[in-house]
Amino acid sequence: MRILILGGDGYLGWAQSLYLSSKGHDIFIFDNLMRRHFDLEHNFSSLLPIATLQERVKAWKEVSGRQIQFRIGDTTDYEAIAAVFREFQPEAVVHFAEQRSAPYSMIDRKHAVFTQVNNVVGTLNVLYAIKEFTPACHLVKLGTMGEYGTPNIDIEEGFIEIHHKGRSDILPYPKQPNSFYHLSKVHDSHNIMFCCKIWGIRSTDLNQGIVYGFETDETVLDPRLATRMDYDQVYGTALNRFCIQASVDYPLTVYGQGQQTRGYINLRDAIRCIELAIASPAQEGEYRVFNQMTEQFSLLELAEMVVKQAQEVGLHARMVHVANPRVEAEEHYYNAAHTRLIDLGLEPHLLSGSVLQSLINLAITQREHIDPELIVPTVNWRTTKNEVVHTNDGVSE
Amino acid sequence: MRILILGGDGYLGWAQSLYLSSKGHDIFIFDNLMRRHFDLEHNFSSLLPIATLQERVKAWKEVSGRQIQFRIGDTTDYEAIAAVFREFQPEAVVHFAEQRSAPYSMIDRKHAVFTQVNNVVGTLNVLYAIKEFTPACHLVKLGTMGEYGTPNIDIEEGFIEIHHKGRSDILPYPKQPNSFYHLSKVHDSHNIMFCCKIWGIRSTDLNQGIVYGFETDETVLDPRLATRMDYDQVYGTALNRFCIQASVDYPLTVYGQGQQTRGYINLRDAIRCIELAIASPAQEGEYRVFNQMTEQFSLLELAEMVVKQAQEVGLHARMVHVANPRVEAEEHYYNAAHTRLIDLGLEPHLLSGSVLQSLINLAITQREHIDPELIVPTVNWRTTKNEVVHTNDGVSE
Repeated sequence: MRILILGGDGYLGWAQSLYLSSKGHDIFIFDNLMRRHFDLEHNFSSLLPIATLQERVKAWKEVSGRQIQFRIGDTTDYEAIAAVFREFQPEAVVHFAEQRSAPYSMIDRKHAVFTQVNNVVGTLNVLYAIKEFTPACHLVKLGTMGEYGTPNIDIEEGFIEIHHKGRSDILPYPKQPNSFYHLSKVHDSHNIMFCCKIWGIRSTDLNQGIVYGFETDETVLDPRLATRMDYDQVYGTALNRFCIQASVDYPLTVYGQGQQTRGYINLRDAIRCIELAIASPAQEGEYRVFNQMTEQFSLLELAEMVVKQAQEVGLHARMVHVANPRVEAEEHYYNAAHTRLIDLGLEPHLLSGSVLQSLINLAITQREHIDPELIVPTVNWRTTKNEVVHTNDGVSE
Repeated sequence: MRILILGGDGYLGWAQSLYLSSKGHDIFIFDNLMRRHFDLEHNFSSLLPIATLQERVKAWKEVSGRQIQFRIGDTTDYEAIAAVFREFQPEAVVHFAEQRSAPYSMIDRKHAVFTQVNNVVGTLNVLYAIKEFTPACHLVKLGTMGEYGTPNIDIEEGFIEIHHKGRSDILPYPKQPNSFYHLSKVHDSHNIMFCCKIWGIRSTDLNQGIVYGFETDETVLDPRLATRMDYDQVYGTALNRFCIQASVDYPLTVYGQGQQTRGYINLRDAIRCIELAIASPAQEGEYRVFNQMTEQFSLLELAEMVVKQAQEVGLHARMVHVANPRVEAEEHYYNAAHTRLIDLGLEPHLLSGSVLQSLINLAITQREHIDPELIVPTVNWRTTKNEVVHTNDGVSE
């Protein structure tokens, strides 16, 4: 199948591209390299060194014999994205091409506006390009479990049947996102649902949990095929960051009380889910939502699991509670449905001691490169600035 | 009270500014004159001639002795909007400064993107400016009843108590907006709710019904104080347009079957509602939603009422069903709560035969200026274009 991967140079996009290419699909990557630009902006870098997109594609050809096409371009540039749809005629498009960090969106006003405009306009352009050039193309869009927030009732997959004053309807699940980034995904979801309705576009919106893991069967074939390994305060997500902190005996930083519970998913499962969604596409005009997660944990549970496994491999791991830079409930109900991808055939890789030990051991191989200062949270939801000021050391404040 | 009116040169904004000035408030208008630009773009014009903003303000000073301050500027220009908050130190801000036509947003991709970026970024800037310069300022934001769509259960005011699998919560009412414009208002609502939570901003989100009427006690004091009177396919809303069609014996154009039911409100009530919201502001950190409507009608009911009253004043009125340019349910349940503004003291001016006759009679005074071609709907939800093409006669197609 001809599959267009928007944002195919990122943490998930690259692993996804390799996986689908290995399955025999014809892959076209479109990426503006913005994730690499964010590294330069903040002096971050992936702990596992990553090759350039050109080198990655060349290495994959050498290793697998398969050609991945790619083009450097921006989804907010309609001429550029339209040209790709017109020329490549994708049968499915996987849309990872968004600014995806909550802390990044909370740095200041400019980063908030950038995140929402970039994500919303990019997705509008993709919708218009599908309508114009490939109306039967299946849009597989990455959303986030964070769209739902933490309601006091069970979270369902995109829609909920509501009984109210003697009547009932199945309506979009109410959203309570907790950052300008998460808000941008809610905006996208509403826009996509509308376009499915008026133009007959077929779309799957994947509300993905927090992804952990650094390796897939494909990325390990050659060092040039590695995907990103982030641990900084802006792009390092909870579980990955804990494993890396443990590897350098840095205390695991639990924000606030640590009862914040979220959905999680292994990188290998995340890329498999998208394969499953593509194999059973949405119908014409259908907007469907899958919760792309396999388990849920509180921060405290995760930190305790990482401490235990780190001690088993001989590290002096411990955790520390730090002031929560976010505004969020620290004790709340959380129970999120996630059966629709299982129904399509997903066999989850659940979090285990051996999985955690392999993550920690991989971090240990890179630990001389870790800069502990990048872990400390400086982006604060309450004090987000109006305009960014760069000090001499390049840190936003 | 110092009240900043964003979009104070528009149909509602101007009538609102006069009304609050007449009540003794200190009014500052900030407007980019974009609504007048849209007229130029499409060769539309207000049927009642309107003076320039400078002339309006001068006339109001002559008539009332009261000075309204104003500045030409754009809410998407943060420097400009920040300067107004810093200098004027508003105690309340009424935010009308958005592109407010559903058909305009559906013309093509560029108009869709413009509408969402303009509205979302403008509101983000207002939120950041409040946080920075006037944290106690009450944001009164114009939303729309169209955010809710037409669910099969009663529409509540912003939030709904949901009982689900043995638990319950009060959650944001699910939204099903039906144009890129209505979607932009939903995006705004989510952004505002979040900022109230993290920064303690106080806000009232007014989901307004379709406003009808052309005159207030202030606008009739001098011809230079008139507010807009729109009847074209893009800015002419249902009831106003029907009255103007009747005045020239043009058949009332009912889209589709005409069972589409919506909330309506008289212009005089709309400006009174905002006075009431300002007088009883939201608490610190509170995000509250009022449904700003007083009655609900189907298109068919409205058309029948207008035909009857037009015949009573001697016109040959009739209606005609035209193909619906929108994608919307033409038969549906509709029952929307609207008690919170009544609780604050609103005494509605309901739609009556005499109200309709006065609207029709006012239209008759201007009927030699009506261009019937501007009434015909050419913007179609299904065939919205990717890029606008201007033909020789300047009409988008």
